[in-house]
Amino acid sequence: MNDSEVVVCRLSHRPGRDDRMTTHVGLTARALGADRVVFPDNATGSAETVRDITDRFGGPFEVELSGETKALVRNWEGTVAHLTMYGLPVQDVETELREAVAAEPLLVVVGGEKVPFEVYDRADYNVAVTNQPHSEIAGLAVFLDRVFDGAELAQSWEDADRVVVPKETGKKVVEPDE
Amino acid sequence: MNDSEVVVCRLSHRPGRDDRMTTHVGLTARALGADRVVFPDNATGSAETVRDITDRFGGPFEVELSGETKALVRNWEGTVAHLTMYGLPVQDVETELREAVAAEPLLVVVGGEKVPFEVYDRADYNVAVTNQPHSEIAGLAVFLDRVFDGAELAQSWEDADRVVVPKETGKKVVEPDE
Repeated sequence: MNDSEVVVCRLSHRPGRDDRMTTHVGLTARALGADRVVFPDNATGSAETVRDITDRFGGPFEVELSGETKALVRNWEGTVAHLTMYGLPVQDVETELREAVAAEPLLVVVGGEKVPFEVYDRADYNVAVTNQPHSEIAGLAVFLDRVFDGAELAQSWEDADRVVVPKETGKKVVEPDE
Repeated sequence: MNDSEVVVCRLSHRPGRDDRMTTHVGLTARALGADRVVFPDNATGSAETVRDITDRFGGPFEVELSGETKALVRNWEGTVAHLTMYGLPVQDVETELREAVAAEPLLVVVGGEKVPFEVYDRADYNVAVTNQPHSEIAGLAVFLDRVFDGAELAQSWEDADRVVVPKETGKKVVEPDE
């Protein structure tokens, strides 16, 4: 759905402790309009879960494992936005970010423990969804919703095995028409 | 910051497995403008973490433990919005929800495993932030940002020990002026 590729990169991952958080970063990236997520190569279980959801609920969406997430940030050809509670308010930079993503690929960096200074330094935008401590998943969600200006909520999915039909009450899941 | 009280209720909690998710639900509720969060009474560690953050970064924000989260939903005097991937698109109901929160207290129900049908049935709104599986934390974040129409990003905090000053690069934390 995007003019240019939008990629979410989870910088670091602690197996066990971070499994659900990393999985939710990936699922949020997929549901809210990113084209691809990159996890550290020790996040194999999270990658599997996100791929499985993509197989069942549709794509296109890519999941990658990388041993070099910091190099990905360093060498990214396009705009780098790093989500951090120390950054500039998202509401102050979202217009610029929308223009950036129309022009060139956007890498959205979601930290973990101890983000090295080189990431702050390389980032074109250090972006804060509030300057309060909360959740990298919540920050990513609001960031994507604002950068895509809500268009991600109307995106369609290809090659889904199942489709949820919105209901006032209860649950309705159908097979896709095609 | 709200006309009426906005309360987030985490319906169920599995100690150990859900600790970080429940903590992030609480921190997201606080950072993105809710007045209070209610956790199941087995989520003591998460409650402690959210209270600690409130002590350090400011309030007002209340954390409660309850042995009767389902009864809270059942007996809520005001509007109940239940976040679920099976519900109506948030973009279709957000205007009504803004009017509702201006008029009466809003309870935002964040599920867990196996939400009983009575919650779907009691809810005035079953709301989906996309009809895709992703994260209750991401869903809550986008929901609050939309219901508050971004006003929550500009809220001020009382009785904080420390304040993060937005920076283009790096980190700046100061003591509050007062």
